[in-house]
Amino acid sequence: MVVAEELAKQQRSISVAEFFEKNKHLLGFDSPTRGVITTVKEAVDNALDACEEAGVLPDIFVAIRRVDSDVFRITVEDNGPGIVPENVPYVFGKLLYGSRFHQIRQSRGQQGIGISAAVLYAQLTTGTPAVVVSRTGAKGPAHRFELMIRTETNEPDILAHEEIDWDRMHGTRIEIQFRSTFAAKKRLLDYLRYTAIVNPHARITADIDGEVTIFERVSGEVPPCPKAIHPHPHGIEFGSLKRIAAGSTQTLGEFLVSNFSRVGKKTADEIIGIAQLKPTRKVRALDAEDLKRLLDAMQRVKIPAPPAQQCLSPIGEDLICRGLEKEIQLDFIKARTRPSTVFSGHSFIIEAAIGYGGRLPAEGSALILRFANRVPLLYQQGACAITNCISEVNWKNYGLGQQGLPVGPVLIMVHVASTNVPFTSESKDAIASIPEIEREIVLVLQELGRELKTYLSRRARRKQQDDRARAICSIIPEIAAKVSEIVELPPIDTSPIEGRIMRKLVAKKQTTEGRVRIDVHNYTAQELAFTLYNLSSDEAKDAEPRPDFVDALDGEYNKVWRCRLAPGAAWQVTYSGTGGGTLDLRGVDDAVKVVVDLDV
Amino acid sequence: MVVAEELAKQQRSISVAEFFEKNKHLLGFDSPTRGVITTVKEAVDNALDACEEAGVLPDIFVAIRRVDSDVFRITVEDNGPGIVPENVPYVFGKLLYGSRFHQIRQSRGQQGIGISAAVLYAQLTTGTPAVVVSRTGAKGPAHRFELMIRTETNEPDILAHEEIDWDRMHGTRIEIQFRSTFAAKKRLLDYLRYTAIVNPHARITADIDGEVTIFERVSGEVPPCPKAIHPHPHGIEFGSLKRIAAGSTQTLGEFLVSNFSRVGKKTADEIIGIAQLKPTRKVRALDAEDLKRLLDAMQRVKIPAPPAQQCLSPIGEDLICRGLEKEIQLDFIKARTRPSTVFSGHSFIIEAAIGYGGRLPAEGSALILRFANRVPLLYQQGACAITNCISEVNWKNYGLGQQGLPVGPVLIMVHVASTNVPFTSESKDAIASIPEIEREIVLVLQELGRELKTYLSRRARRKQQDDRARAICSIIPEIAAKVSEIVELPPIDTSPIEGRIMRKLVAKKQTTEGRVRIDVHNYTAQELAFTLYNLSSDEAKDAEPRPDFVDALDGEYNKVWRCRLAPGAAWQVTYSGTGGGTLDLRGVDDAVKVVVDLDV
Repeated sequence: MVVAEELAKQQRSISVAEFFEKNKHLLGFDSPTRGVITTVKEAVDNALDACEEAGVLPDIFVAIRRVDSDVFRITVEDNGPGIVPENVPYVFGKLLYGSRFHQIRQSRGQQGIGISAAVLYAQLTTGTPAVVVSRTGAKGPAHRFELMIRTETNEPDILAHEEIDWDRMHGTRIEIQFRSTFAAKKRLLDYLRYTAIVNPHARITADIDGEVTIFERVSGEVPPCPKAIHPHPHGIEFGSLKRIAAGSTQTLGEFLVSNFSRVGKKTADEIIGIAQLKPTRKVRALDAEDLKRLLDAMQRVKIPAPPAQQCLSPIGEDLICRGLEKEIQLDFIKARTRPSTVFSGHSFIIEAAIGYGGRLPAEGSALILRFANRVPLLYQQGACAITNCISEVNWKNYGLGQQGLPVGPVLIMVHVASTNVPFTSESKDAIASIPEIEREIVLVLQELGRELKTYLSRRARRKQQDDRARAICSIIPEIAAKVSEIVELPPIDTSPIEGRIMRKLVAKKQTTEGRVRIDVHNYTAQELAFTLYNLSSDEAKDAEPRPDFVDALDGEYNKVWRCRLAPGAAWQVTYSGTGGGTLDLRGVDDAVKVVVDLDV
Repeated sequence: MVVAEELAKQQRSISVAEFFEKNKHLLGFDSPTRGVITTVKEAVDNALDACEEAGVLPDIFVAIRRVDSDVFRITVEDNGPGIVPENVPYVFGKLLYGSRFHQIRQSRGQQGIGISAAVLYAQLTTGTPAVVVSRTGAKGPAHRFELMIRTETNEPDILAHEEIDWDRMHGTRIEIQFRSTFAAKKRLLDYLRYTAIVNPHARITADIDGEVTIFERVSGEVPPCPKAIHPHPHGIEFGSLKRIAAGSTQTLGEFLVSNFSRVGKKTADEIIGIAQLKPTRKVRALDAEDLKRLLDAMQRVKIPAPPAQQCLSPIGEDLICRGLEKEIQLDFIKARTRPSTVFSGHSFIIEAAIGYGGRLPAEGSALILRFANRVPLLYQQGACAITNCISEVNWKNYGLGQQGLPVGPVLIMVHVASTNVPFTSESKDAIASIPEIEREIVLVLQELGRELKTYLSRRARRKQQDDRARAICSIIPEIAAKVSEIVELPPIDTSPIEGRIMRKLVAKKQTTEGRVRIDVHNYTAQELAFTLYNLSSDEAKDAEPRPDFVDALDGEYNKVWRCRLAPGAAWQVTYSGTGGGTLDLRGVDDAVKVVVDLDV
């Protein structure tokens, strides 16, 4: 049939570069604006990965400059280990080339696509090559490349290569130019801010058209670089098993122990027993039927989960809280790191945090911060398993309003750390719906929800008590004034009564007949530590108890006492003097203290 | 630095097959259940594309059989043009190989990934090769292949190849085995049903574990195969322009006319003028600056949109309605095909339909049917631009409830036909948010919404009138009976009054003193055509008017009159006889007719 012959003429190979040039939105290059974010993201991911591998505290510089009316130059520079010159053209000029794809461990980059895709996008929109500078140590010079990608073959095209001087001892710098706008500025700063939150050991300096923002590190420790592990027997597919078996010269016993995670001699024997095979057989000699029995046996034997501590790098509850508090002011913050678990043989850990109040907007949906392997996810929130899980939790149980997402001044942060994060596309914007992952996310959100509920109900109770007390207190002075009037005595000081009702720490100072007296009552339910400052012209040499120290300032004396008072307890100091001056209580929240100065 | 050297050892190429084996969920192989759907979908897409290219009415056979406890064999066979034997291994055994990637026209398959991905998934989960049979015409034999993919290189591995006899004159058959379940059965039938709706020229026969379902074609015309067009000047990127220019031996003038859609001599001259270039210059000699000016000029000249009639194949309003009505029973259905338009130089057409009532569930969200290039989209509804657009429309304006999606017995169908459908991932489940596409979808939905509103308000008005009339009519017989009682006369027939109030067609038969009289009144607002059947022992030879025909049956006579009555008009027949028998009105809806036989 002539049709088949004609159709055959049109059938041909498509290079992966051609494929992604046509489908650039799959890689996060839907629009010029987004292209900027994606490029910075891919370069910063690589920089952080490389620094972690080299055990270096990352110091990353990001710059965006307008070079023509609609052409922008994006520069990302790091202090990582650098890339050997022979590999530079491939790392930046070939899609699907990298070091992390074949390793089973947590890393930001996995696919060897991202940064080359930025190079591809730049040459597509402006036709200009990427400029890469890299240096691997003080002994050698830096190498500068001008690179493009041959789309038809997906091979690098080196337009220039020279050795140059560079003030960095080691590191990598990439410059890419493409048509864009500054519209992405806010989102870009958000991306960098969130990156800083989950990489508290990194310093990131951003220079956007001359405006410099520095995200300072909060931790001086490089997190240990996750180590690659072998595949877990419960996560291997038949085809993969067949392939590694075909490439092995080992006996079955050796093969199982040395190629799989968590398989020792005993487990190997058990597997081989169930499969009814001989441990001394060469694995490459096993036929398809033998391999099927072997795979089946591997699934049936109980084997501990993969060693997540080695291959994963969660951020940790403490650093999550510190990172979030640094960047976003909050009244309440709680983080949880779940124990590691497994989907299809891939280890993963879910971490999450919930924040409330502070500077979060009181209205509207919660602020959702999604992260995967320490990388913030900025796009496709609606398509992400994290968002689905957040919507699934019944937040009304935890004291929040809900319209799909919870509403109110709430922040929810979820971090998925895994040896293989299942993204919904190469642009790595959203996590696919994997039941095991979703289950863990829901569990951690429920745990945090309970914590939030405790906080919110305590806050509500306190507010109610305060409201009541305030109502009562507002009439006490009036009653006291009335009583004083009737009994024809001077008005009395009602603040201690108020203090008792209000459950506060009350400090009162009064001076009578050359004696100064300061009383402090702790009417709260907690033990309180505080510092009392009394600044006046009295030197108070006879004070009892003695001040902890006294500062002399221009003829005045600032007398300082450090105190600690149990709930219901009282403290007093007296000294000779004329009184006046000021009284101050520090170390306790403004909301729980009342200072009454009767000398004024 | 030693680290860079060590890292360099791990850097290497990743084959596209390795990449997609690891990221198989990107291709729609998240789970074994879904794998079945994806495999059938890819094979059926290819079959439909091939039949369209060959101008053949598709006759597709899909079978799923359990061959082992958890292993299933999926077979898809078509009567397409077949594939020449030299290309079969590449079409099925190499990812990124195909005929449609480089063509600018609407087709189901675009990437040359789908069916090879199914082969990859089968070998990964069961280690078995795919079996392909193809024959390109009656003159030659069929070729049978057993194929796998070498993952490391993404090249086909031919395990067997032989010539065989096959009863099909031309066509292709693929058999793939993998671990799965029957859980996908309902979804698979849905997929085939929806495929039948948007491919009304196809017959699809499904045999799922012995249970056969046939989706018959409703149209006997093969839709014309869309023709490939040149790129449009407004949609070309600098990199692509540079590439085609570098490969051309033409002068600038010739180059523009022969390589771009909608560019004639006049437009070419205009572009060249604005770019300040000479039309006789060889394009391959243009430098980057010249090309930039040329590209800029191409954008500035007004050029008509690409010829969508050639390269696109919308279904059409009539076939959409027929397809939907055949598969889903509806009270109301309306379809719209929008004029073609353009995003980034790619032509597209939006078609949509809205259905109401019938067998659609009265409760819950609307049934959303999404299609792209005549392929149903089954997964990731929430991530799709179509769903977003449906949620964005304010359906309350059109008489529907809404909770994100509209609610009630509603069906919304949207078809995006384009030379380049922007999917959010290779699995082609959801359409990306492209403003131009979203705008068109919202517009067509609003148009259809207005149609629905007209239908719903007319229905509501009719129902209200009916309710009122029914309430009045229910008391008329009682009043009549009371009146008869008072005036001491026999009860009168109130049905004509009811008919008038109810706005119906009322037929009444009565016999007095050897004369039979039949009256018909049209109390409706429309002209009505109907047929009157009067079966009785009277031969009615003197009937005036004469019956159109008379059937004699066992001594009885069925007298038949065909009538047409204007609104408000009346018709009468009388004849000699004894009356009795039956009276029937046909050709009008039960809801608008009342038959009263006073002889009974």
